[in-house]
Amino acid sequence: MSKKAFQDFYPDHWSHCYGCGRLNEQGHQIKSYWDGDETVARFKPQPYHTAIPGYVYGGLLASLIDCHGTGTAAAAAYRAQNRPLGTEPPVRFLTGSLNVKYLKPTPLGPSIELRGKIREVKGRKVIVDVSVIVDGIETVIGEVIAIQVPEHMSFQSETAEQS
Amino acid sequence: MSKKAFQDFYPDHWSHCYGCGRLNEQGHQIKSYWDGDETVARFKPQPYHTAIPGYVYGGLLASLIDCHGTGTAAAAAYRAQNRPLGTEPPVRFLTGSLNVKYLKPTPLGPSIELRGKIREVKGRKVIVDVSVIVDGIETVIGEVIAIQVPEHMSFQSETAEQS
Repeated sequence: MSKKAFQDFYPDHWSHCYGCGRLNEQGHQIKSYWDGDETVARFKPQPYHTAIPGYVYGGLLASLIDCHGTGTAAAAAYRAQNRPLGTEPPVRFLTGSLNVKYLKPTPLGPSIELRGKIREVKGRKVIVDVSVIVDGIETVIGEVIAIQVPEHMSFQSETAEQS
Repeated sequence: MSKKAFQDFYPDHWSHCYGCGRLNEQGHQIKSYWDGDETVARFKPQPYHTAIPGYVYGGLLASLIDCHGTGTAAAAAYRAQNRPLGTEPPVRFLTGSLNVKYLKPTPLGPSIELRGKIREVKGRKVIVDVSVIVDGIETVIGEVIAIQVPEHMSFQSETAEQS
């Protein structure tokens, strides 16, 4: 597992995401890492991240799957291009679709492990399967179809930041 | 549109959800209403609910779809039983699966409208289609497969609340 997370390599103007942006003080700031051919992130929910008392809010789990999925997609794209994270040009992904299946309630309290597996890297599209694991038990599975951010949107984002 | 939201009828021990619980002070507290045969909720994202600057965080949109979907499922179940919301026994739904397709980026700033359509009510399962609409434009569509909370979980939730 490398020391610097995928998200630490995002350029500043792509680092405001509520889920994974290191510059979003109110956000979750999740951190994703390689672990062999899989990727992993860990997150500790707050007591207020509840669904029914005692269980984690499903919307939070969907959000974590989403951001770990797009982070994994970016890392997979760099790896497919045989270049290290952080090299130019930067690559960033948005979610095209997010499919989440809740297998069982996720207990609120312990840290959550998110484990990503790259199913496909094809052109500007990467498909990632993500498992939510708590105390060794898989409670939720998700599929993220991630699409590389088009150039005109990264231009807009810089404009928005400067305005 | 009725004055009291679906979520206002949830019993207290089912009202802690981060997305829609009226007793969760840190949560979104979304409010869903009938609008003819459809359901509607409105939500104003905060400036920090950002994805790439200028656009709404996809995880928030998934969360709103989720809660509006389960709220709609509960209302649909009461309606299918020809009884008003708030009558006994209470009915509450959890998400079995959540499928979200991001058609285009959702601009951050205006209020978001969530519009639910009930596709199917069958036993303990309700399927709801939800559209995210901003300034009249549909930016995201979601499908929520909601499952009625089993009795043993509502017992657990009361225990958790009392502990």
